[in-house]
Amino acid sequence: MGTINRQLILKSRPKGLIAPGDLQLVEAPLSELKDGQALAKVKYLSIDPTMRVWMVVDTYLPAVAIGDVMRAFGFAEIIESRHSDYKKGDRVTGLTGLQEYVIIDDSGKRSFQKVPKIPFVSDTVFLGVLGINGLTAFFGMEIAQPKKGETLVVSAAAGATGSIAGQIGKIQGCRVIGIAGSDEKCAWLTKDLGFDAAVNYKGSDWKQKLAEATPNGIDIDFENVGGEIMHAVLDRMNIFGRVVLCGLISGYTKADPSLASFGTVLVKRLRVQGFIIIDYVSRFMEAATQLGQWKMLGKLKDRETIVEGLEKAPDAINMLFTGGNIGKLIVKV
Amino acid sequence: MGTINRQLILKSRPKGLIAPGDLQLVEAPLSELKDGQALAKVKYLSIDPTMRVWMVVDTYLPAVAIGDVMRAFGFAEIIESRHSDYKKGDRVTGLTGLQEYVIIDDSGKRSFQKVPKIPFVSDTVFLGVLGINGLTAFFGMEIAQPKKGETLVVSAAAGATGSIAGQIGKIQGCRVIGIAGSDEKCAWLTKDLGFDAAVNYKGSDWKQKLAEATPNGIDIDFENVGGEIMHAVLDRMNIFGRVVLCGLISGYTKADPSLASFGTVLVKRLRVQGFIIIDYVSRFMEAATQLGQWKMLGKLKDRETIVEGLEKAPDAINMLFTGGNIGKLIVKV
Repeated sequence: MGTINRQLILKSRPKGLIAPGDLQLVEAPLSELKDGQALAKVKYLSIDPTMRVWMVVDTYLPAVAIGDVMRAFGFAEIIESRHSDYKKGDRVTGLTGLQEYVIIDDSGKRSFQKVPKIPFVSDTVFLGVLGINGLTAFFGMEIAQPKKGETLVVSAAAGATGSIAGQIGKIQGCRVIGIAGSDEKCAWLTKDLGFDAAVNYKGSDWKQKLAEATPNGIDIDFENVGGEIMHAVLDRMNIFGRVVLCGLISGYTKADPSLASFGTVLVKRLRVQGFIIIDYVSRFMEAATQLGQWKMLGKLKDRETIVEGLEKAPDAINMLFTGGNIGKLIVKV
Repeated sequence: MGTINRQLILKSRPKGLIAPGDLQLVEAPLSELKDGQALAKVKYLSIDPTMRVWMVVDTYLPAVAIGDVMRAFGFAEIIESRHSDYKKGDRVTGLTGLQEYVIIDDSGKRSFQKVPKIPFVSDTVFLGVLGINGLTAFFGMEIAQPKKGETLVVSAAAGATGSIAGQIGKIQGCRVIGIAGSDEKCAWLTKDLGFDAAVNYKGSDWKQKLAEATPNGIDIDFENVGGEIMHAVLDRMNIFGRVVLCGLISGYTKADPSLASFGTVLVKRLRVQGFIIIDYVSRFMEAATQLGQWKMLGKLKDRETIVEGLEKAPDAINMLFTGGNIGKLIVKV
């Protein structure tokens, strides 16, 4: 075809935030499509904290190899197909990688899902509310087993997953408190999303404010952050509380992710459940149906921070760790 | 009555191990029994790690107040009764405290259970296999939801609870590995109790030996210790593993009980469940029936370390933290 594919290649594993040169922009020629392959143009890239983990260490997926295209979830449109499952114009989400084009093949190494065009709804919804974040919030809240009237605290509450988890908590009858890193984020949570309260953890008296916002203690911790924030939440947990361990973002740029006390878990008889969304693939349809219904009914509101240009993706990933985004963070390719 | 009651009173809260003077032996006159009271002679005292916690901090029970008789579980015999539920000769277990006599009354502050005399079986069985330790092991293994062929690791495996938890694991078809602090303890676990392997954590290569003993990884951690030992076990956990958080004894004599990484819990999608036996009171009969049957069938073996004399109780508590006992540690009053 002769087309050039711009890609971000992992050159070195970051220590703290991603440094210039850790991801290198290269131009590679696109090879001719073979039978069983389809070519998709990547339109939007989902920028998620887990990418920082993929850059350094084997976890639930192997670390990205040095020299490989950086792994990322994205939205793409099929522009040419010799693959029986896809035709030109099909719209898909999946692990596109940080690049302008992706070749989908039959090897099974990459799994893509076709998504519909919904009138008046941005395609980016399939990276957020109806994508990984919505699914993660949905199954996380299922693990939490909320009861009406219980108090739910969500950390990184103004993030893509946290903001949905909190809204699901409201749908399920919980008192919902968000923890976020700016007054603007907190205002969004309470005024737009209907959280009962929000606490800015950058305020010096935030632990006091968390206590005031949770007069009956905390029954469910939807934990995205770890470290000091998780510690403060555990301090206010009620006995038989549940900690849904969704992320530990405060530790992802550090050597040892997330120390906190297991003593509290024992004394308060907490259930701490780690989970990762890839274990729920067989139930994605069920969850997406429910999420789509809530979205249509106006019960799930979202907000996006869109960064333009593939070359900005490294800075965008860093934004997740410096608190730069509100809601879903997306790179428009 | 004129009888003197020797008691151990909490005088100061220990920092590390219990120091001389933290518990003071006093002689107090026994007051006349009133209607609704029964007097019991304490025969055996159960020496448990949780006592060290009770000495310093409010947890699932309030800390023992300075000046109060030290809280302890014990076996006692009614010697005089003006209480309608008890008659002379009745045998009971409950929170007797570290003292020679206990007055049982209707106030509900102390709850006692009558226990039978079983021919050829020592009364101390009601402090161990058929007491708190057996019940704790039973409900802990229920939380673990073991499947046949899974690998169970028990820390503090030669202790009163750990040794029973491991044997229940064998009954339920697990491969069972114990971690203990001496070769003698390890030999007891494998030769007498039927553990598949035991690892002495005081050996320099113990983590290597743990790896060799768990070639298929670890599915269940029955955790009694915390700290470095728990960390090593978590390192070998399989995904979807379960951590039954029964105790964190390595931290009880330290300021901060038990740091370990929540990162592993997330990445391996572990379920960590803290539990405390007092939540299961309504199911004690059910569990005791099963434990008694296993004991009769010879499927639950036990061993006791008996220390003679109430005045030795402080040293006995310290033995739990220095590894001095094998099996159930009891003070004979």
